[in-house]
Amino acid sequence: MDTRTTLLAHARDSLDGLRREGRYREFARLERIAGRFPRYRWHPPGGEAPREVTVWSSNDYLGMGTHPAVLAAAEAALRAHGAGAGGTRNISGTSPLHAALEAELAALHGKEAALLFGSGYVANQAALSALLSALPGFHVFSDAKNHNSMIAGMRGAPAARHIWRHNDLADLEAKLRAAPAEAPKLIAFESVYSMDGDIAPIGAICDLAERHGAITYCDEVHAVGLYGATGGGITERDGVAHRVDVIEGTLAKAFGVHGGYVAGDAALVDYIRSTAGGLIFTTALPPHVVAAALASVRLLRADPAPRARLAERAAALKAALDAAGLPRMPSASHIVPLRIGEAALCREVARRLLAEHAVYATPINYPTVPRGEERLRLCATPLHTDAMMAELVAALRAVLPRAAGARAA
Amino acid sequence: MDTRTTLLAHARDSLDGLRREGRYREFARLERIAGRFPRYRWHPPGGEAPREVTVWSSNDYLGMGTHPAVLAAAEAALRAHGAGAGGTRNISGTSPLHAALEAELAALHGKEAALLFGSGYVANQAALSALLSALPGFHVFSDAKNHNSMIAGMRGAPAARHIWRHNDLADLEAKLRAAPAEAPKLIAFESVYSMDGDIAPIGAICDLAERHGAITYCDEVHAVGLYGATGGGITERDGVAHRVDVIEGTLAKAFGVHGGYVAGDAALVDYIRSTAGGLIFTTALPPHVVAAALASVRLLRADPAPRARLAERAAALKAALDAAGLPRMPSASHIVPLRIGEAALCREVARRLLAEHAVYATPINYPTVPRGEERLRLCATPLHTDAMMAELVAALRAVLPRAAGARAA
Ligand SMILES: Cc1ncc(COP(=O)(O)O)c(C=O)c1O
Ligand SMILES: Cc1ncc(COP(=O)(O)O)c(C=O)c1O
Repeated sequence: MDTRTTLLAHARDSLDGLRREGRYREFARLERIAGRFPRYRWHPPGGEAPREVTVWSSNDYLGMGTHPAVLAAAEAALRAHGAGAGGTRNISGTSPLHAALEAELAALHGKEAALLFGSGYVANQAALSALLSALPGFHVFSDAKNHNSMIAGMRGAPAARHIWRHNDLADLEAKLRAAPAEAPKLIAFESVYSMDGDIAPIGAICDLAERHGAITYCDEVHAVGLYGATGGGITERDGVAHRVDVIEGTLAKAFGVHGGYVAGDAALVDYIRSTAGGLIFTTALPPHVVAAALASVRLLRADPAPRARLAERAAALKAALDAAGLPRMPSASHIVPLRIGEAALCREVARRLLAEHAVYATPINYPTVPRGEERLRLCATPLHTDAMMAELVAALRAVLPRAAGARAA
Repeated sequence: MDTRTTLLAHARDSLDGLRREGRYREFARLERIAGRFPRYRWHPPGGEAPREVTVWSSNDYLGMGTHPAVLAAAEAALRAHGAGAGGTRNISGTSPLHAALEAELAALHGKEAALLFGSGYVANQAALSALLSALPGFHVFSDAKNHNSMIAGMRGAPAARHIWRHNDLADLEAKLRAAPAEAPKLIAFESVYSMDGDIAPIGAICDLAERHGAITYCDEVHAVGLYGATGGGITERDGVAHRVDVIEGTLAKAFGVHGGYVAGDAALVDYIRSTAGGLIFTTALPPHVVAAALASVRLLRADPAPRARLAERAAALKAALDAAGLPRMPSASHIVPLRIGEAALCREVARRLLAEHAVYATPINYPTVPRGEERLRLCATPLHTDAMMAELVAALRAVLPRAAGARAA
């Protein structure tokens, strides 16, 4: 076989298929304007002049990515220590800043130790693979809506996988009961689910874990910095952090910078540090990125005001959408999904919002959400004003029936 | 089973085992001093006062991580656009800078397109998994010394794996011949092997690939920026870039910043972009990191002087070690391994170099290299002076027999 010809043909066919389904992703070029977040300069395809837009789909949930103290920390470390880390953690890439951020994150979660990774994705993938490869015969119990990075981590280990129905304790219990009593077990779940905004019953999951001798692994990527008295996430808010064995998080969402981590018992974290390929064989995070993240974590641990403001803004957005009769989906968090229900329509709605109303909201299609549940995923940060909300609602009211009509025609 | 108790006991046992073998890694805390690279402040464990040392194990091969133009680009983008990207590539995380760097990297390698990842590790893992999952029945032919990240990528796909003896064309040919003629095939290899410093016969590998209808995937992580007229790597130096289907590289070594990428045919790169979990489901690289990398790539494409200086410095280091009768291993590149041969000894040599001579060189032990081949891996950058080399040689002469003696006693 001529692999190249066959592979290129397959690639072109697949891309055509995505285009036909309306699922082909073109990455909008958006230039954040520091100091004016959530305003961005959008660079339209085809070289039209850039236009200012309001972004409703940023995961920089609190706007910390443009906080002056965060930028000052990055700049100071950049000047003092340069750009990249220049090596893996073991090969000259660990600075005192890395150690300080790890200590700060351990303290944030009330754990003995924490370990940085290049991203939250890599943290999940590398840590879950390492843990599930540690003992023979591991059984892992994975919530059906777990993120791709956790699934990648579970696939990277020889463990037997059981998928329990999303947030369904009875199904989890049945599956735990059906597994061999003598097998090592791990329950993997998220706290805030990123596409629905619902929240796991963590305490009840820990009850089941204790009853069945399982350890618990919780992805708090969409909750750290945002929930709990000091931003420790839902595990802190619910007073259950000490019952969750491994808490995983990101520095790239509420903390506004870049990188991921896990926190847990010292021996467990040291074991992951000593065995995970995704940590050992890759360049460490740049010192100035670490410095910026450290500044952000410290700010958000000390100051609950941004969290309160986020909750207020999210409630205001939900109320505004409801008052306008827009198809908001239920959500227990700051994440506000708006149901569209079809990939090409979803893409078209987003296109018009951007081109006609200077409003950016990403269309979320399969495989990120199931088919039929395509949506816009909106997040109001503390910096989204009432006026911006009024503009968003007006734009949605203008675009939604028209777009749906165009589709039906 | 109480998983937590069993797992913690296993973790502690494993860590004790690593300690007994001398393979337990403690990350030295090294603070790079921008403007004075390769000088760092070493923070000894236990809170002793920091001391200045010369680092011989940085992969910031040309010192670009502290180049003023690179830092200025980072700073300008940081001020203009903030710290993190705030979203995945598809969800508001793509800036015009990302697109510009991808275009620059495609041009660097003479390819139609390039695609950024969070690191070179993720690039290999995500791209190889995506490619090898594209067609059913893939056979992949992997050089025995391929990096952990490539192995992770191959493991992430259902392809049949064949390991050929390192750089051994006859063995590769035999394995290609033995595989089904009608199966799709991919040959995966590196250009410069990072721990030995030897170089693959890329043209001859491409000949075999053509004869057997295979595509080729080359990791140029330790060569981009360093070899070829414009820093396109060994594929450029040897005039074979157009014959290699996918070239993978990092922005974290010669370019001195952070991130990884692949370059190849537009349809292939677009296919990876559209299907690779490690790209779709993770926050994009921060704009200022991208800006810094872009500045670095542009500088090194235009100016061959740092490459010439690196070659001269590497030759000088090899000559100095040889003249002193030190156990240098053969190397065809800028990477200069020094054989030690035993893990605990290797660690002890490195410890004494640092504590007694202010010289930092990482001990490289199993599993990074095979047992019995433990080594120090030295790299002279353009900023390592003759005086630093003399100091290094004197330190090695002082420490090597003593350390070996202590061990034998
Ligand atoms: C639930 C969840 N976990 C992990 C990640 C990955 O985190 P990061 O963006 O830091 O790679 C994401 C999204 O990006 C996520 O939504
Ligand atoms: C051969 C090789 N490929 C890939 C990588 C990963 O690159 P990065 O450090 O950008 O993750 C490394 C080392 O780090 C390497 O040595």
